[in-house]
Amino acid sequence: MNGSGTAPAAPTPSARPAYRRLSVEERRTQLIAAALVLFAHRAPEDVSLDDVAAAAKVSRPLVYRYFPGGKPQLYETALRSAADDLELCFAEPQTGPLTGRLAAVLDRYLAFVDEHDAGFGALLQGGSVAETSRTGAIVDGVRRAAAAQILKHLQVPEPGPRLRMMVRTWITAVEAASLIWLDEGKQPPVEELRDWLVDHFVALLTATSANDPQTAEVTRAALALERAEGPVGRLARQVIPVVSDAAHLL
Amino acid sequence: MNGSGTAPAAPTPSARPAYRRLSVEERRTQLIAAALVLFAHRAPEDVSLDDVAAAAKVSRPLVYRYFPGGKPQLYETALRSAADDLELCFAEPQTGPLTGRLAAVLDRYLAFVDEHDAGFGALLQGGSVAETSRTGAIVDGVRRAAAAQILKHLQVPEPGPRLRMMVRTWITAVEAASLIWLDEGKQPPVEELRDWLVDHFVALLTATSANDPQTAEVTRAALALERAEGPVGRLARQVIPVVSDAAHLL
Repeated sequence: MNGSGTAPAAPTPSARPAYRRLSVEERRTQLIAAALVLFAHRAPEDVSLDDVAAAAKVSRPLVYRYFPGGKPQLYETALRSAADDLELCFAEPQTGPLTGRLAAVLDRYLAFVDEHDAGFGALLQGGSVAETSRTGAIVDGVRRAAAAQILKHLQVPEPGPRLRMMVRTWITAVEAASLIWLDEGKQPPVEELRDWLVDHFVALLTATSANDPQTAEVTRAALALERAEGPVGRLARQVIPVVSDAAHLL
Repeated sequence: MNGSGTAPAAPTPSARPAYRRLSVEERRTQLIAAALVLFAHRAPEDVSLDDVAAAAKVSRPLVYRYFPGGKPQLYETALRSAADDLELCFAEPQTGPLTGRLAAVLDRYLAFVDEHDAGFGALLQGGSVAETSRTGAIVDGVRRAAAAQILKHLQVPEPGPRLRMMVRTWITAVEAASLIWLDEGKQPPVEELRDWLVDHFVALLTATSANDPQTAEVTRAALALERAEGPVGRLARQVIPVVSDAAHLL
């Protein structure tokens, strides 16, 4: 059933046989993990199957035995695995102020971005040779999962078009801000980025309330859960002095 | 100098010789215009050089004479031409309330999106076979031009990282909202989408003021130009009843 652990070493010195026999599933997991580390830090076109074999300390033919489709299959599998990890980040208990839950999810998401930096950038910035309609579908699936989680926390079983557009737009804004953050050498500090993204959500939700009764209801319910010492209280107290000169607008 | 108008008709019945001689520049412009119409309404992979030749009522060899690089070159040239048109949309006199200028630019931008619907979607959603690092650079150039225009209107010669991130994030949000709008059969009506995007800008600018003195200064200056009957006055009056129950946060 499993002869892969005894595959002959490849001629390159860096590819050595594994130290113990792994089960098929263990070996597969190990190869995906090695591929993920490589794809995280380089653009897919800069990762070869030889690199993956060397990182996993196995031969190139063994990598092909597990992934007969070669690099495209390995890339897609690694991406699928990263997407599953990312979707796990989104799970958050539905208790406490909404901004606290959002901050907790953003902390995990931004840790993921930090860890998968170059690969995350290459994937989302597109134009990669490794991109296919299937890899695009995996990324879209993550976006849909994120939107579904947010709508669940907003407790809206049948979100209307305005609220859905608001949530999807904010998710894109989070992606864009993450890419800019990577581009700018991970500045500002990740906690500041997270707080700004939470503020962005609160601001967009509130502005969308202006013309959408459903969003207004969601906003009222969300604000009722917030605390004066929390992010929304802080945001309100910091913004009021800025807008207070604009009494002519009321 | 110009024998292209007399090129022999291709064997297909739809490709007929042009009715009059065009100059090299006129012919080139005509081919790009025909390609743009086709690329606007279909994904690039669904447009062939035969389609372009038929639409321009010329032979396929004539198209190749002008674009020896074939479809990739024609696509890139058409995209460059569309990008130039789009950048022209961004020019707006620096007078009056900022929201009025933003609304005027968004009206032109959304008319462009409406006109180039399928092509716009295919281009921005990525994963297209016609995408290359050069087409990506053209799209990024349009984004940079949009950001530069906004910062010019905000009258910030040296924008800090927060304000730059805010502007770039909003631009991505506009793109995302445009794609969702196309996806949803161009709903809500374009004027509502435009007003929401203006509200989004105002909300994001204000929220970013909370932790960035430069953005706070820009917000104060922008609010001073607004009028009670304008978008910011309307937004404030509509939002106040929604947030008024949250006095516990102050």
